[in-house]
Amino acid sequence: MRLFNKVAIVGTGLIGGSLALFIKKNKLAGEVVGVARHKASLAQAIKMKAIDRGSLSLDIIKGADLIILATPVDSIIALRKEILKNAGKDCVVTDVGSTKEKIVSLLGKDFKNYIGSHPLAGSEKRGIENASQDIFKDSLCILTPTKKASKKALGKIKSLWLKTGSRVVILSPEVHDKALSFTSHLPHIAAFSLINSVPLNFLKLSSGGLKDTTRVALSSPLLWQAIFLTNRNDLLSALAVFEKNLRMIKSAIKNNDRKTLTRILSQAQKKRSILE
Amino acid sequence: MRLFNKVAIVGTGLIGGSLALFIKKNKLAGEVVGVARHKASLAQAIKMKAIDRGSLSLDIIKGADLIILATPVDSIIALRKEILKNAGKDCVVTDVGSTKEKIVSLLGKDFKNYIGSHPLAGSEKRGIENASQDIFKDSLCILTPTKKASKKALGKIKSLWLKTGSRVVILSPEVHDKALSFTSHLPHIAAFSLINSVPLNFLKLSSGGLKDTTRVALSSPLLWQAIFLTNRNDLLSALAVFEKNLRMIKSAIKNNDRKTLTRILSQAQKKRSILE
Repeated sequence: MRLFNKVAIVGTGLIGGSLALFIKKNKLAGEVVGVARHKASLAQAIKMKAIDRGSLSLDIIKGADLIILATPVDSIIALRKEILKNAGKDCVVTDVGSTKEKIVSLLGKDFKNYIGSHPLAGSEKRGIENASQDIFKDSLCILTPTKKASKKALGKIKSLWLKTGSRVVILSPEVHDKALSFTSHLPHIAAFSLINSVPLNFLKLSSGGLKDTTRVALSSPLLWQAIFLTNRNDLLSALAVFEKNLRMIKSAIKNNDRKTLTRILSQAQKKRSILE
Repeated sequence: MRLFNKVAIVGTGLIGGSLALFIKKNKLAGEVVGVARHKASLAQAIKMKAIDRGSLSLDIIKGADLIILATPVDSIIALRKEILKNAGKDCVVTDVGSTKEKIVSLLGKDFKNYIGSHPLAGSEKRGIENASQDIFKDSLCILTPTKKASKKALGKIKSLWLKTGSRVVILSPEVHDKALSFTSHLPHIAAFSLINSVPLNFLKLSSGGLKDTTRVALSSPLLWQAIFLTNRNDLLSALAVFEKNLRMIKSAIKNNDRKTLTRILSQAQKKRSILE
């Protein structure tokens, strides 16, 4: 069932490319066009049948009734005025960025029907070559609509994500950013700091534990510095909580306090078991 | 090929049980006996053909030419005098504990042929019911022999671990504990603290990143408090390095210092990519 006439994906990487593939495979749009910074990405996206046409210029998004912004979060913000120039007045606009408050407050002013999206899918991998139409299946997608966005626009975006197999939750950008500072941004900070703490010559004396705990440190530095910096205040608060918890364990170890240590670890084990 | 006449496994859990299974399946010993705290574990070990006979009492280890201590690290230390009473003079003794300095310095005094072992295998799971003879394949086993242990004893222990498919590295207990404080104990501390930092109502707004980063927080609190407390000094030093790295990221975020932040994350990504 066709949901849109022309969908424009700005940023045909892992997430943008995967969503493009899904839309094309399921014929949800009459046409899918893509914008990227490199010709090779566009050629690959066309080869994989993720988009019908591509361009290095934003001109190509003209006439779209859905624009999906899938670049790093700082680029979404930087590109907004140029996108506005090329976007139709009634066009529905969404993004797939990992932080929402800054993006939605700025782009919500520019666009009549702005609905933030954050699909909690993908991995530390990047690029259209890792894209797949299935990555959203059974994952969570958080929507953060602006107040002025029409019900019809929200309905269409929600319908698109539900079709991908995502569960959809609607939150305010503020609650989204606070929650994700704990459940996503803080774990990335921990992983980056953890691997940086391990002396190089000890790396070979490790097992699955270190690998699991630091897997997300393989993520793109450019993507993640922007995520951290667009969610600064929430992230600094989450970091303070983490540091407090570290100090509690440290003090129990320092004082040989087996009882407190066991209580802290048991609490953690119990909480972690909720996750799966 | 038979390596031992009688092997005694004290603690028939995940690691002890898996090693027992491997020894039995490959007929490396004339007899394998097990000691556990609960009859049910022994019954399960016999049912799985991991041991020939089992007992709640250490009497059963009499006459063994190899004793494998596979209880939590604090129990290895607590049980040493009672094991000594039942062990033959020339018996080879090893353990599979995650910390080595305290264990090897104490048990190295009690036993003539003491060789510490640390197989970097297993998972957050526990118990004989999760045991499998294959868990050591392609993993690393660190041996920490005492100086007085005979070459023959070391050769036999090395041969046993090589047969399981482990790679074997020989280190001093001191170097082992320092290295593992960074590559294993610190990641566990980070994981326990991380999950304890996430507000309960936000847990459902998480994806694979939080799961990976905190998987080891599912590990046994009793096992891990003992590991932490028997490697206190090294672990406190490793924790101090981790806290310093966290402060560096925090300060870059606070100061909106995109350049420093990107450099820290790039360094982490590069280091992590060495691991696989």
